[in-house]
Amino acid sequence: MKCKTVLFLLMSWLATGMVLAQNGVLVFQSDFGEKDGAVSAMKGVAMGVSTRLQLFDLTHEIPAYNIWEAAYRLLQTVPYYPKGTVFVSVCDPGVGTDRKSVVLLTQSGHYVVTPDNGTLTFIAETLGIQEVREIDEAVNRRRNSNESYTFHGRDVYAYTGARLAARVITLAQVGKKRPADVTRIPYQKPVFENGVLKGTIPVLDVQYGNVWTNIPKNLFARLGAKTGESVRVRIFKGNQNVFDDQVQLVNTFGESKEGENVAYFNSLLNFSVAVNMGNFAEKYIVGSGPDWRLEIRK
Amino acid sequence: MKCKTVLFLLMSWLATGMVLAQNGVLVFQSDFGEKDGAVSAMKGVAMGVSTRLQLFDLTHEIPAYNIWEAAYRLLQTVPYYPKGTVFVSVCDPGVGTDRKSVVLLTQSGHYVVTPDNGTLTFIAETLGIQEVREIDEAVNRRRNSNESYTFHGRDVYAYTGARLAARVITLAQVGKKRPADVTRIPYQKPVFENGVLKGTIPVLDVQYGNVWTNIPKNLFARLGAKTGESVRVRIFKGNQNVFDDQVQLVNTFGESKEGENVAYFNSLLNFSVAVNMGNFAEKYIVGSGPDWRLEIRK
Amino acid sequence: MKCKTVLFLLMSWLATGMVLAQNGVLVFQSDFGEKDGAVSAMKGVAMGVSTRLQLFDLTHEIPAYNIWEAAYRLLQTVPYYPKGTVFVSVCDPGVGTDRKSVVLLTQSGHYVVTPDNGTLTFIAETLGIQEVREIDEAVNRRRNSNESYTFHGRDVYAYTGARLAARVITLAQVGKKRPADVTRIPYQKPVFENGVLKGTIPVLDVQYGNVWTNIPKNLFARLGAKTGESVRVRIFKGNQNVFDDQVQLVNTFGESKEGENVAYFNSLLNFSVAVNMGNFAEKYIVGSGPDWRLEIRK
Repeated sequence: MKCKTVLFLLMSWLATGMVLAQNGVLVFQSDFGEKDGAVSAMKGVAMGVSTRLQLFDLTHEIPAYNIWEAAYRLLQTVPYYPKGTVFVSVCDPGVGTDRKSVVLLTQSGHYVVTPDNGTLTFIAETLGIQEVREIDEAVNRRRNSNESYTFHGRDVYAYTGARLAARVITLAQVGKKRPADVTRIPYQKPVFENGVLKGTIPVLDVQYGNVWTNIPKNLFARLGAKTGESVRVRIFKGNQNVFDDQVQLVNTFGESKEGENVAYFNSLLNFSVAVNMGNFAEKYIVGSGPDWRLEIRK
Repeated sequence: MKCKTVLFLLMSWLATGMVLAQNGVLVFQSDFGEKDGAVSAMKGVAMGVSTRLQLFDLTHEIPAYNIWEAAYRLLQTVPYYPKGTVFVSVCDPGVGTDRKSVVLLTQSGHYVVTPDNGTLTFIAETLGIQEVREIDEAVNRRRNSNESYTFHGRDVYAYTGARLAARVITLAQVGKKRPADVTRIPYQKPVFENGVLKGTIPVLDVQYGNVWTNIPKNLFARLGAKTGESVRVRIFKGNQNVFDDQVQLVNTFGESKEGENVAYFNSLLNFSVAVNMGNFAEKYIVGSGPDWRLEIRK
Repeated sequence: MKCKTVLFLLMSWLATGMVLAQNGVLVFQSDFGEKDGAVSAMKGVAMGVSTRLQLFDLTHEIPAYNIWEAAYRLLQTVPYYPKGTVFVSVCDPGVGTDRKSVVLLTQSGHYVVTPDNGTLTFIAETLGIQEVREIDEAVNRRRNSNESYTFHGRDVYAYTGARLAARVITLAQVGKKRPADVTRIPYQKPVFENGVLKGTIPVLDVQYGNVWTNIPKNLFARLGAKTGESVRVRIFKGNQNVFDDQVQLVNTFGESKEGENVAYFNSLLNFSVAVNMGNFAEKYIVGSGPDWRLEIRK
C-alpha cells in the first residue's frame, strides 16, 4: 500500500471515529420523579465510572409506566444533542419480564440505553437504526448489585451508559449484536386522503396546554392553506368528537389576540393548536396518546 | 510610550478582560417546566457548541408568561454567580411581536440573554447596565432553524448564550449596540413617608409560604424598630386590606414560638413576614406582583 | 528506616489520601423546592469557589422541615457516589437555635455538610462515623454575608461544601473536632421476635406509591418465607391498623398480575409492598415516618 492510501484510510477511520465516538455527555430520562434519591443514585454510579462525564436530564416526570410519552420525549430532545451523546431512558413497566435491555446507535450517531419496550419507536423512525446491541448483564452490571433484582435503572442502565459515554467500553462490548430493529408501538401515521389530513396527538405541550400533533409541516402543505387563513380542526378521543371548529393559522402567537384559538407549527415543525395566552388542553379537555385522533380540512 | 506604560496598559486591559470575560458557566431560566424535553433540548444545543461548558438551572417553574416573577428570580440569583457567568432567561409571551432579543452586560460583569420585555427590570436597577446589544438573528441562530418560528429559546437564546459563554463569540459579535437601557415594568418603589414604610410584594417564598417585600433593611431602619419589638403590618391587594396586625421582629425563627407570625429580613436582606413553621401566604391568602402593596408602621 | 519501609508508608499514605480525598463532586439536598432561585444561588456560590466542581442534586423536594425524610434520602443516595464526594444537606427548621453546623466524614469516605439536627441518623448508622467537625462560621462563611441571618444554606453550607470539595480547605480547616457522634432521631429498629418481624415505614417510593420498610432482606430471611409464598402484612399508624392481608413475595413485578398486591425487596434490599402497576400508598392511605409501624408473619 502506498503511503497516501494508508493516510487516507487512517483519516477515514478517524473521521468515522469522530462521528460515532462517544463525547462524554450522558443524558437521563425516567418516570422516577425527583422527589427521592433514585435519579441522583444513578448519577452517583455514573460519577463512580468517571468524574469527567457531563450529566444532564431530559425529564424524570414521564407519567409512571407511560412508554408512549417516554418515546416522544426522546424524539423531542435527542436530535438537539451533538453526535456521540449517550441517553439512558428508564421507563420500565416490564422489569423482570423478558423484555431485552439494549443499546441503540442511531444513524445520526446518538446512543440510547433502554429496555426495548417501545421507547425507541419514534427515534428509530426518525433518526434511523445503525446498530442494536443487547446488554450482557453478566458483564455490564454494577459490582455487588447481583442481589438487587429491581433497580435496573441504576445497576444496569446508568452503569452501562456511563461506561459507554466515558469510553470505558465500546459499543461492541455492550453485548451481542441483535437484528437492526426495535420494538415499536403501533399508532396512526399522518396521512392526507380525500382532502383530509389525519394524525394523532402524541403529547401535549404540558406547560402551556398546547396540543401537538404528528402532522409535519411538509404534509400539511398539501392542504394548500396559508398563514392567516383558517382550517377546520376536529379532535376525537376514540370515536367521540371533543373539538370541532375553524382555527386560524399563524406564524407566531403575536399575530393573534389573547384568548383566541390558533394553529401553528411547533418547535418540531409539527401542526399544533393553542389558545393564545391560555390553555387549550384544559379548555377543551384534550389528552394525548394513540387513542387521540385529529382531522384537518380546509 | 515607555515600556512601563505599555505594561500598565496591558495589565489594565488583562484585568478588565478577566473581570468581564465569560467564565464558561451558563445558567438557564424559563417558564417551560421540566415535564417535557424543551429545557433539555436547549442544553443539547449548548453542548453542541462546547462540551466544556458548565450548565445550570435557575428555575424553569416561572408561572407561564409571568415576566414579573422571571425578573425577580434573576435578582435573587444572578449576584451569587461569579462575574463572567452567562444567563439565558426565556419567559416570552411576546414571541413573534416586535420585542427585541438582547444581551445585557451588567456593571457587575454578568451577562443575561433574553427577550427585552421587562425581565431585566430588577437586574438593571440593582447591578447596573454596562452595555446592551441586540441579537443579530441572521448570524446568531442555530443552523437549519430558519423554518422554525416558535422556539427562540432553543434556536436563538440558548445558542447565543452558549456561544458567548464558550467565547466562540464576543459581546460585540452578538449584534449592534443599543442605548444603555432596558424595558422596565412600572411598580411601587419602597418609600418612607410620614412615619409609614410602603412597598410591594415582589414574590412569595413559595416553598414555605413566606411573604417577601421590596423594603430593604437599611430603609426599614428609618422606622426605628428593634429586634424583639413589634411593628404594625398592613397588606393590600389593590385597595382591599387582607392583613392588619402587629408582628414581632426577629433575627431568626428560633426566637419565636411555632405558629407565631414573625417579621424578619430574608436572604436578600428585605423585610419579610412568615408564620414560624407554617405558611403565611396560605393562612392569610396573600399573593404577589405589582398589585400587592404593604404598609408598615410602629 | 529502610527504603522499602519508606516506600510502604508512602504508598499507604497515598492510598489513604485517595480514599479520603475530596473528588470535586458536590451534591445538594434541601427542602427549598426548585420554584425560586435559592438552590441556584447555592450553586452560584459554589461556582465562585471553583468552576471545575461537578454539581448535582439529590432532591430539593424534601417536605418542608422534614428532617426524617432528609435523613432517609441521604441513606438512599450517598453510598452510590464515589468516595470523596461532598454532600450539602439543608433541611433546617432550627436555624438560629443552638443546633451545630457540622461536617461528617463517614468511614466509607463520604462527606456531609449539614446542620446536626438528626439528618445524619441513618448515614451514621450505616456508613459509620470517621470524624465530625464543627463548622467555624467565623472563617467558613461567604464574605459580606454577616448581615444575612437567615440563609445558612447559601452562605455557610454551600460555601463550606464547595471549598471542601474543591480542596480549598481540608477537613481539619472546617473547624474544631467534635466527639465522634451525631444527633439521632429515635425510631423502632427492625426486629424478629416470637415469629413476628417488626419495623417502620421510613419513606414511601413516592412516584409509584410503593411502601418501603426498614426490614432488610437478611433479617426477613429468618421468617423462612420463600419467593412465590405469601406472608401476612399488617400496617399500623400509631395504634390504628390500616392494612391487614396476605401478600405474595415476588422477585420482580413481572411475576404477578396487574393490580395485585406484591411484596418485594427494593433497591436498598429492604422489604417493600406495592400494587403491580398501581399505587399502594394511595389505595390503602399509607404514610411514612416514625409513627408508621409494620408487622409481618407467615
